[in-house]
Amino acid sequence: MIDGSILIGQGARRSEASFRAYDPATGAVVGPAFSISGGQDVADACALAADAAGVFGSLAPAVRAAFLEAVADAIAGIGDMLIETAMAETGLPRARLEGERGRTTGQLQLFASVVRQGDWLDATLDSALPDRVPPRPALRRMNLPLGPVAVFGASNFPLAFSVAGGDTASAFAAGCPVVVKGHSAHPGTGELVARAVRKAVADCGLPEGVFSYLPGKSHELGAALVADPRIKAVGFTGSRGGGLHLVEIARKRKEPIPVYAEMSSVNPVIILPGALADRGIELAGAFSSSLTLGAGQFCTNPGTIVAVDGPALDIFVGAAADALAGVEPATMLSAGIAAAYAEGVAALDRNPAVERASTERGAGHNRCAPALFDTTAEAYGRDASIGDEVFGSAAIVVRCRDLAEVAAVAADMEGQLTATIHMDRRDMDAARTLVPLLSGKVGRLLVNGWPTGVEVTHAMVHGGPFPATSDNRSTSVGSLAIARFLRPVCFQNLPDEMLPPALQDANPWHLSRRVDGERRAVAANMPPAG
Amino acid sequence: MIDGSILIGQGARRSEASFRAYDPATGAVVGPAFSISGGQDVADACALAADAAGVFGSLAPAVRAAFLEAVADAIAGIGDMLIETAMAETGLPRARLEGERGRTTGQLQLFASVVRQGDWLDATLDSALPDRVPPRPALRRMNLPLGPVAVFGASNFPLAFSVAGGDTASAFAAGCPVVVKGHSAHPGTGELVARAVRKAVADCGLPEGVFSYLPGKSHELGAALVADPRIKAVGFTGSRGGGLHLVEIARKRKEPIPVYAEMSSVNPVIILPGALADRGIELAGAFSSSLTLGAGQFCTNPGTIVAVDGPALDIFVGAAADALAGVEPATMLSAGIAAAYAEGVAALDRNPAVERASTERGAGHNRCAPALFDTTAEAYGRDASIGDEVFGSAAIVVRCRDLAEVAAVAADMEGQLTATIHMDRRDMDAARTLVPLLSGKVGRLLVNGWPTGVEVTHAMVHGGPFPATSDNRSTSVGSLAIARFLRPVCFQNLPDEMLPPALQDANPWHLSRRVDGERRAVAANMPPAG
Repeated sequence: MIDGSILIGQGARRSEASFRAYDPATGAVVGPAFSISGGQDVADACALAADAAGVFGSLAPAVRAAFLEAVADAIAGIGDMLIETAMAETGLPRARLEGERGRTTGQLQLFASVVRQGDWLDATLDSALPDRVPPRPALRRMNLPLGPVAVFGASNFPLAFSVAGGDTASAFAAGCPVVVKGHSAHPGTGELVARAVRKAVADCGLPEGVFSYLPGKSHELGAALVADPRIKAVGFTGSRGGGLHLVEIARKRKEPIPVYAEMSSVNPVIILPGALADRGIELAGAFSSSLTLGAGQFCTNPGTIVAVDGPALDIFVGAAADALAGVEPATMLSAGIAAAYAEGVAALDRNPAVERASTERGAGHNRCAPALFDTTAEAYGRDASIGDEVFGSAAIVVRCRDLAEVAAVAADMEGQLTATIHMDRRDMDAARTLVPLLSGKVGRLLVNGWPTGVEVTHAMVHGGPFPATSDNRSTSVGSLAIARFLRPVCFQNLPDEMLPPALQDANPWHLSRRVDGERRAVAANMPPAG
Repeated sequence: MIDGSILIGQGARRSEASFRAYDPATGAVVGPAFSISGGQDVADACALAADAAGVFGSLAPAVRAAFLEAVADAIAGIGDMLIETAMAETGLPRARLEGERGRTTGQLQLFASVVRQGDWLDATLDSALPDRVPPRPALRRMNLPLGPVAVFGASNFPLAFSVAGGDTASAFAAGCPVVVKGHSAHPGTGELVARAVRKAVADCGLPEGVFSYLPGKSHELGAALVADPRIKAVGFTGSRGGGLHLVEIARKRKEPIPVYAEMSSVNPVIILPGALADRGIELAGAFSSSLTLGAGQFCTNPGTIVAVDGPALDIFVGAAADALAGVEPATMLSAGIAAAYAEGVAALDRNPAVERASTERGAGHNRCAPALFDTTAEAYGRDASIGDEVFGSAAIVVRCRDLAEVAAVAADMEGQLTATIHMDRRDMDAARTLVPLLSGKVGRLLVNGWPTGVEVTHAMVHGGPFPATSDNRSTSVGSLAIARFLRPVCFQNLPDEMLPPALQDANPWHLSRRVDGERRAVAANMPPAG
């Protein structure tokens, strides 16, 4: 079932050159030699995608929803081989991957329900005013898909943010064909999922160009994909360097295109004095759990704790260090990620303005020993490198003189995916001051929780101001992610039979539409006068 | 009332250096010497705007709507001095400017109604699921304003797309303070409107930083404004060069920001064979009227006619040339625009692949003599310069061998604000083929109309793929323009009293909200469980 092919539409091909996958726990080779996609493969996949865009983009909602569900079913249908392959390629434990599989199929099903519901089309009708001077023509607007989307698989979610993850699901939901550049750390997992997706494409009778899968390792492959003129948007989750590189390529095209890159975040957690005094030890335990979940390899990992200095903070730090000492070092996703983590931790160890709060210990092959550091707000403000994200279970405590300095640290922060406030009743005034400040910095603001665990719902925002993402007007998780791949088009004075169904008088898709400024329920959705 | 000041918040200051405004009809100086804003003025205006952003961005909808209406009233209250000043500075006739004033106040009022209605907040509530394993926290999402917006006044709409035009109105509606870089061709008009806006700011008791006005002439002024770290988005209408320059500055910032630049378009008009045969002469007259409206100084001016070659097209071209010969050359907006028009026309006259179809004639000082040119699809495809926009009443007829070549010309076109199909019943098959093709190229697709005349409504899209704009997911005209200046933020597990009013249980703003995926009417809008 996994033979290392490049999957372009319903075709499969192999390259002469190849690369291998490795079990990060052992370094052993996993699976066959994988093909390396080249320029012709990119061009062929994009050409097929462009051919498919018209048909796929104009499917009735029910048909596209059924396709999303077919993709979910096909992934579920792979069975345990998917879990075992992903375990071998990523070092992630079975329970995590089974959960992630459920999240992956669940988000495909969520988008199916969103597509069926139809509000994403934003169908808007303004009546003609033939008696006005000058007469006003009939104007009708809806969202159309942008066209073929390039999706970059992320290493840290081999299922939920890879081949058929959130970017692919939301692009499909919007009506955009997808060309995936697979992540080189889990190519077998990627191929299994890709084969499931294209089976769904075939089973639903859709044009083959709706989906292609390009395995490979090089930056050149991704660059060629983003540069292809038939690609109209990009979804990416990964490093800041990688994301900004794609943004730059997209900008230099003859026709620049949007890049939705979800890049980096240290997810500050502010513990206010009341909460710190009342339940510092409890918070330390919960912090340790959130920090070490999945070896800390989450975009929303709580990498920075901000609090007022004092004995209560000492107790918190001590308890957190103790808790972290009890966490078994976990295998990281790849040798490269483990090496980067070790270097990030070493840089903080070398920094004279930073103290190590947790015990140093050996981690083992490609494993992540949790690390907690301690510094002052003054040092944190002076040396920007202290605030850099260390991907993995490393965090830093920033000790502030007072609440004003807590607010100043928050105000100086770059854009973040999340920020969190821990508070008790007596912290209410301080918390109220922080809410507007923090909500200007983040995509998601939490109270008395931990940022890991990103729910796939309607209200979720997994996004935020630069450099958390390259486009702060969007989310990559949750139903609003569909909006990234749509644009509005107005149709003026078209004969009814030439209009897309979403805008026709008879409302054949049974949409709730906005007519002359008023939202109409489906039942009340009569065509406008004129 | 017009003294050439720089208006920063409620303050006024003057520079030593100054520039003058000119009547384009006569070259005579109009009004006083106008100050030239410098770097300190930019910094001060942006600092005030940042100070005002929190208060202004969190106003109740009714309060912000009242402010928009107060701006409209204040502009209307300027009286005839506004019209006379604009006439002198732009050469536009009274009727046009009176109409444009009505459009300007009308769009402020439209945005007031949009703000009151509240759907722009996209308030979305997902209930907590405390019994789920793991428990799901309550998640609530709404749109927040991006922050201070830089608006660049456009020369061709001295009221409706300048100081308090569509960009300013939609940014205000979203809750963003605005810093306007005034257009140097109509500084007196700009100052009058700016004084009206800040009077409304004061009358409504809003922080002065909600609005500042920076007159000036240089590119450096605009560049400094876009580079200021407190500016969070940019609205621009103007040339491709100017727009791309701002995009580049915005990209190079430490925190890149969105630039909504509405730049260039030739607005292709396809006349299908049936329509051409049946009513070629009538279409020629209507085309001439649309092309010469306002001396052709509209973004949506119909600059390219595409049709199948033959006797019917000869008749159309002849009739159009005759009609254009009867149009009196009109004064253009500025000497610079008139010179650019003359050069654009001369370049086409020099091009051996292009024939002049209309009579050449002298135009007079800063005036626009309409010009119609004729070429083949083959030449048009070979020499991209033939398709460049000539801002003013110039157009080119592209003769195609057959309908397939018409479609090929359309397929090769860059992104456009509009495309138009003229058709009769018998053209239906050809038109149906063109609709998906053209809707992928434009923001607005018309049938049997002319693209000039952009209605300010809910369904309008004044936007389109690059290079028509720098962001094809947006419109600069119509109520959807508010979306350009918003971003979603999710609030997780916040105590009700810490939530923004839009998301509180009691729904104090009486919004229609989406609760657990279902849109609720205001009356049915109970808080979610949990």
